[in-house]
Amino acid sequence: LEEFVVTIETRLTKRLRIKHPIVLAPMTPASGGALASAVAAAGGLGLLGGGYVDRVWFEAESAKVTRPDIGAGFIAWTIPEDPGLLDYALERYPRAMMLSYADPATYAPKIKKAGVPMICQVHTLEQALHAVDIGADVIVAQGTEAGGHGLGVRSTMPLVPAVVDALAARAPEVPVLAAGGIADGRGLAAALMLGADGVLMGTRFYATQEALVPSAAKAAVVAATGDETVRTSIYDIANGRFWPEGYTGRVVRNDFVKKWLGHEDELKRVRAEELKKVQQAFGSGDFDVGNVTVGESIGLIHDVPKAGDVVERIVAEAEASFEKYARQRIAA
Amino acid sequence: LEEFVVTIETRLTKRLRIKHPIVLAPMTPASGGALASAVAAAGGLGLLGGGYVDRVWFEAESAKVTRPDIGAGFIAWTIPEDPGLLDYALERYPRAMMLSYADPATYAPKIKKAGVPMICQVHTLEQALHAVDIGADVIVAQGTEAGGHGLGVRSTMPLVPAVVDALAARAPEVPVLAAGGIADGRGLAAALMLGADGVLMGTRFYATQEALVPSAAKAAVVAATGDETVRTSIYDIANGRFWPEGYTGRVVRNDFVKKWLGHEDELKRVRAEELKKVQQAFGSGDFDVGNVTVGESIGLIHDVPKAGDVVERIVAEAEASFEKYARQRIAA
Repeated sequence: LEEFVVTIETRLTKRLRIKHPIVLAPMTPASGGALASAVAAAGGLGLLGGGYVDRVWFEAESAKVTRPDIGAGFIAWTIPEDPGLLDYALERYPRAMMLSYADPATYAPKIKKAGVPMICQVHTLEQALHAVDIGADVIVAQGTEAGGHGLGVRSTMPLVPAVVDALAARAPEVPVLAAGGIADGRGLAAALMLGADGVLMGTRFYATQEALVPSAAKAAVVAATGDETVRTSIYDIANGRFWPEGYTGRVVRNDFVKKWLGHEDELKRVRAEELKKVQQAFGSGDFDVGNVTVGESIGLIHDVPKAGDVVERIVAEAEASFEKYARQRIAA
Repeated sequence: LEEFVVTIETRLTKRLRIKHPIVLAPMTPASGGALASAVAAAGGLGLLGGGYVDRVWFEAESAKVTRPDIGAGFIAWTIPEDPGLLDYALERYPRAMMLSYADPATYAPKIKKAGVPMICQVHTLEQALHAVDIGADVIVAQGTEAGGHGLGVRSTMPLVPAVVDALAARAPEVPVLAAGGIADGRGLAAALMLGADGVLMGTRFYATQEALVPSAAKAAVVAATGDETVRTSIYDIANGRFWPEGYTGRVVRNDFVKKWLGHEDELKRVRAEELKKVQQAFGSGDFDVGNVTVGESIGLIHDVPKAGDVVERIVAEAEASFEKYARQRIAA
């Protein structure tokens, strides 16, 4: 039995039975068992990063999960590579299943039948409307400033309220999470002002002690400003991962990106040897070459704390932000 | 002597002596004398849209200005085409001078000498730091979701707090305005949560009764969702306007845009005849061809009210947004 103190209560905290309206993005490989558990322990929702349905990784990280109240997430267009992993995750993590980057309609019946809340990440208003039509229980409206993959055509500030308005008419019970560009309590407060019920954060949790990326990658996040990221397909090309049309990934604009940006066709011809360099670099901590898959909010990140401290800090900052103007109005 | 009621007081309202932290973007041709005056009358700051330093237009619109307390703004790289117009504007509109889209250093000495507050619009953190170093009195941090021109590399949500933090160390007296994706009181409240001192809005005022664009263009804004805009150089190519490298403009993705997107080189060869079509279409109200230069926030715009009503509505909405969470915290 946990002590349960409501601070910022929203439709999300009620629907998913969490203390704070903060959700960990199911990043691969950053969001492993330790990180998902730490976010849950601090009162947020931790989502284990199923990513490209890598069963070996997923089972290994499942062994590190310390609590029953986490969820999971997958890159939906890769599920056919191992459909059984979705079943495994639904059984093991009934708190929530998040799908991204493909039509969720294919898997909605299975998720709904399992009684697991289905979180659908969308990048446009059109995708949001489709997602609620096929049964999404929570919508993540992700702007182009986010790290990792997306369509890159909408930004968080105008996308979130447009989705909120559209859902108010079409699916008024569905909470909306803002994602993209949010890394502190100011961002959480802003998202709530836009009408969101909470935030999904990847980049901020990437630079935490529990995140499963090399410490040199976290140091690269702390060092860079928000001007130093870019959307590109370069690492997907090197990896031989054929993403659906329109999807690019935001990464730090390092030497490897600068070298290949605009030379994608050439990269396709030499991708095998370039992939070796990327993998070696990731392993050895050389992030001038290895990918640092994060968003513009790196400009707001200056340390590598514990994930639980991040959650607490963000809630306190958001409350302070509200009070600044609440107090002012009373004074005026 | 005006009655002066403070509602949301910020460093901006104090610095520019305005009632509400809302600034009209100096759009060309939308922000004429009537629109700038209407925003000022409602307690915001109206900026006359000097744009491409068109003296005939600027003098004609100046004749329609009904109040002394407006400012003006120019596309800075076009000022050399008629440098005297900057002097004319500084003398006539001492409330504020906004420069965009080029290094403001060239004109800073003249503006500072005239004692006119210099507002510099920036699109990256790097540009923001440069602008305060050369004397900017107010910074507009504009995200890629904005209508019209910009570098298109940063989004409002993460750019604004990064600029706020950097200026807190480097130029703590300089207010920051958020621009891009903001069209209602939720956006104003969100911007203030991010640490901004106010907002600069173009698109929302484009769809007001006083805006100097055909009513069919305003109807196109009301009809479209936020998914239906795109950054492009197509209209610049047609117009023969050679923008500095990296600058594109966000417009509604209409038939003309769909036709030429990805075929820019071909458009360059036939630009004279295509420009005729665009100009005729703009005049006749055919916005399948004519440019509707607006941002993603069109998804939040559903009417064409008076500009003064927009200002009042936004302030009331922002206050209601704050109170939602202020009240909740007291209850909790």
